[in-house]
Amino acid sequence: MSSEPRNRQQTLALRKQFIGSSCKLFFPEDPVKIIRAKGQYMYDENGNQYLDCINNVAHVGHCHPEVVKAAHQQNLLLNTNSRYLHDNLVDYAQRLSKTLPEKLCTFYFLNSGSEANDLALRLAQQYTKHKDVIVIDHAYHGHLTSLIDISPYKFRNLDGQKEWVHVAPLPDTYRGLYRENHKDPATAYADEVKKIIDKAHRESRKFAALFVESLPSVAGQIIPPSGYFQKVAEHIHTAGGVFIADEIQVGFGRVGKHFWAFQLQGEDFIPDIVTMGKPIGNGHPVACVATTKDIAEAFSATGVEYFNTFGGNPVSCAIGLTVLDIIEKEQLQAHALRVGNFFLELLNQQKAKHPLIGDIRGVGLFIGVDLVQDQEKRSPASKEAEFIITRLKEEFVILSTDGPGRNVLKFKPPLCFNTKDAELVVDKLDMILRELEIRKT
Amino acid sequence: MSSEPRNRQQTLALRKQFIGSSCKLFFPEDPVKIIRAKGQYMYDENGNQYLDCINNVAHVGHCHPEVVKAAHQQNLLLNTNSRYLHDNLVDYAQRLSKTLPEKLCTFYFLNSGSEANDLALRLAQQYTKHKDVIVIDHAYHGHLTSLIDISPYKFRNLDGQKEWVHVAPLPDTYRGLYRENHKDPATAYADEVKKIIDKAHRESRKFAALFVESLPSVAGQIIPPSGYFQKVAEHIHTAGGVFIADEIQVGFGRVGKHFWAFQLQGEDFIPDIVTMGKPIGNGHPVACVATTKDIAEAFSATGVEYFNTFGGNPVSCAIGLTVLDIIEKEQLQAHALRVGNFFLELLNQQKAKHPLIGDIRGVGLFIGVDLVQDQEKRSPASKEAEFIITRLKEEFVILSTDGPGRNVLKFKPPLCFNTKDAELVVDKLDMILRELEIRKT
Repeated sequence: MSSEPRNRQQTLALRKQFIGSSCKLFFPEDPVKIIRAKGQYMYDENGNQYLDCINNVAHVGHCHPEVVKAAHQQNLLLNTNSRYLHDNLVDYAQRLSKTLPEKLCTFYFLNSGSEANDLALRLAQQYTKHKDVIVIDHAYHGHLTSLIDISPYKFRNLDGQKEWVHVAPLPDTYRGLYRENHKDPATAYADEVKKIIDKAHRESRKFAALFVESLPSVAGQIIPPSGYFQKVAEHIHTAGGVFIADEIQVGFGRVGKHFWAFQLQGEDFIPDIVTMGKPIGNGHPVACVATTKDIAEAFSATGVEYFNTFGGNPVSCAIGLTVLDIIEKEQLQAHALRVGNFFLELLNQQKAKHPLIGDIRGVGLFIGVDLVQDQEKRSPASKEAEFIITRLKEEFVILSTDGPGRNVLKFKPPLCFNTKDAELVVDKLDMILRELEIRKT
Repeated sequence: MSSEPRNRQQTLALRKQFIGSSCKLFFPEDPVKIIRAKGQYMYDENGNQYLDCINNVAHVGHCHPEVVKAAHQQNLLLNTNSRYLHDNLVDYAQRLSKTLPEKLCTFYFLNSGSEANDLALRLAQQYTKHKDVIVIDHAYHGHLTSLIDISPYKFRNLDGQKEWVHVAPLPDTYRGLYRENHKDPATAYADEVKKIIDKAHRESRKFAALFVESLPSVAGQIIPPSGYFQKVAEHIHTAGGVFIADEIQVGFGRVGKHFWAFQLQGEDFIPDIVTMGKPIGNGHPVACVATTKDIAEAFSATGVEYFNTFGGNPVSCAIGLTVLDIIEKEQLQAHALRVGNFFLELLNQQKAKHPLIGDIRGVGLFIGVDLVQDQEKRSPASKEAEFIITRLKEEFVILSTDGPGRNVLKFKPPLCFNTKDAELVVDKLDMILRELEIRKT
């Protein structure tokens, strides 16, 4: 669109001039200019190829030709709001319903995961007529005012905690309250939620929801112990609230074994509301809330219309449908499982060699490498993590960190990421870890 | 995308099954199925052509070939987040800055007008360190939790008014507190805002913002008296708050004389924050907040990142840039002025003939026809308005109503709407008004 291509410095100068500085760049000291991408690879203005290990939005691969084609074909025909009947909307809802437990059969379409979580909160509060929400420590549910309120990751740095928001401990069995040596961490962490509920009840507070990322992400790529969701769901239901599973980071087959990450907890677990975003449209702004008939009916009983101008338009739905088609046709869920397991194996070999690696955890292509200064104390190796991602970028591998200590290397690549890519990353990682060890000695 | 085309009833049945019933259809008794659209026309599954008088989102015309092409070309290349440098983002911000007063030179990109208004509210509250907001009666600023709080159109039917939200009278000189016979309605309405501020100050409350649609839309297509914005801006500034102009419905040349509707108030008026949505991407989910360096810096001084996953991606920006190109190349702003004036003239001829028409108001292609049961009392002719839009639909003209009495016919068509379209609508309207008059006698 530009009259003539700019060099990196010129683009950066204009960005500093015109874009709010709260919008951060990756590698702010030496940002990357990306001009095209394909599959799991991105290319800068000099033609350098980067391996993308983190973009879970480009779910079926950057610029997947079938997604691009579906968008174009629908853009040529019609892009309007959902106040007219259109088959794409109903086809898409029906297709999504087939991926979910039968109970989750009512859909709302929106433009972003944040919009989805905001609506989920409204649905829960309307249905229960309660206000209070339990969230998990370090959670991030979105950038909107209502979501900053329920995101400890954000509100700790801003206005602080609202009286209707309660923070439960992160069910992290590596660095949390109850660890791998505990005989029943799922129950122990669930009991913490129960304690919060009991305390709040003594203060006459009432619960609308427990809001949980199916796999806590910015909290450090955490995998809650199996059975935890069933137990906390029971507690929140007893308190009259609902269970909201935030699948925005991790849904759509990423975890390999299942289509939805909440299903890792077992077939007997069914959330009351599921929110979807990021990967759903492979980069196109789409999002979705799935819920039960009862909750949807309580919401419409207010008589107040819910209208989302762009939400559920025929283009977004065509794209969403095509993403589902591709996941199926290219068997990306099975691929995520296979490549993820291979990747975990390679990483575990590294763990045996490098004392900096404290923990390797993951399911499918959602993997965290927890770096520690000390294997015993498990103190976060934040600086080392920062060094590694900076060095990896010089090696044309894009990776980033998560966790409160920013010491967890997070892998959530496009699902077309393959075993060769995994080998390349692990080789580079090995090399850089050796560099670090030489420096230290 | 569907395996075989469905008839209207089949699509409707699936919609009832899978889509939350809070999401309303136009003409719920007999909804329309639209399968394609071009310019100002939409087509149903039987090939019937409808004239679209209301879709301000399809700003440069449904499926404008250049917008479709820009989306496709960029989709083929790259669609990723704004954490990498990209020229489309900075080009787009720079281009938008040229349409605005110099002071409004910092931009944030998002996915919906609602996201934009939510951020505007955060910016104002962060900058001023105050909480309270003044909004205009019957205003609608979006579907998010934070915006329902500041939208009397919504909160009156839900949780009610928060203590930090103050509602000022709608500056409606036809049906409001101060009318066309008042010697200075701008000052009179502005004094009402001043009164609210003074009263709240006595209660030790502090103001973050006055939030105003540049032309109140769901309130009934209202044109605030000239000079009103300057006066209320002075009051809110004195109180330490900022002026937020919501241009989501009416920006981008619709008003003809100016590119932004707030500019109708005079060149000496400059808002502190401007929010944009709907027409900005011709249907693609894009939105924008423009503000001053000072406000942006106060926001980033918190140290908290603002990250919007899809906001400002290269595809959205390519589309936004192309929309600006088309407005310029096709001279749509001048066209809106010319066609709007012609349309207003035709409508005023009808007013002389039909006592049901109480008021005709408009600028460019933002026009309201206020229907009254009684010219003296100005009581809303709600049922008649409903009858008219239902009959117009049978005549293949899509129109809808607005205003608290749902008695204002609202025209906000794609900007390619032409004089022939205006003639057609007015002829149909004349015919239907005569039908109504015959029924009444």
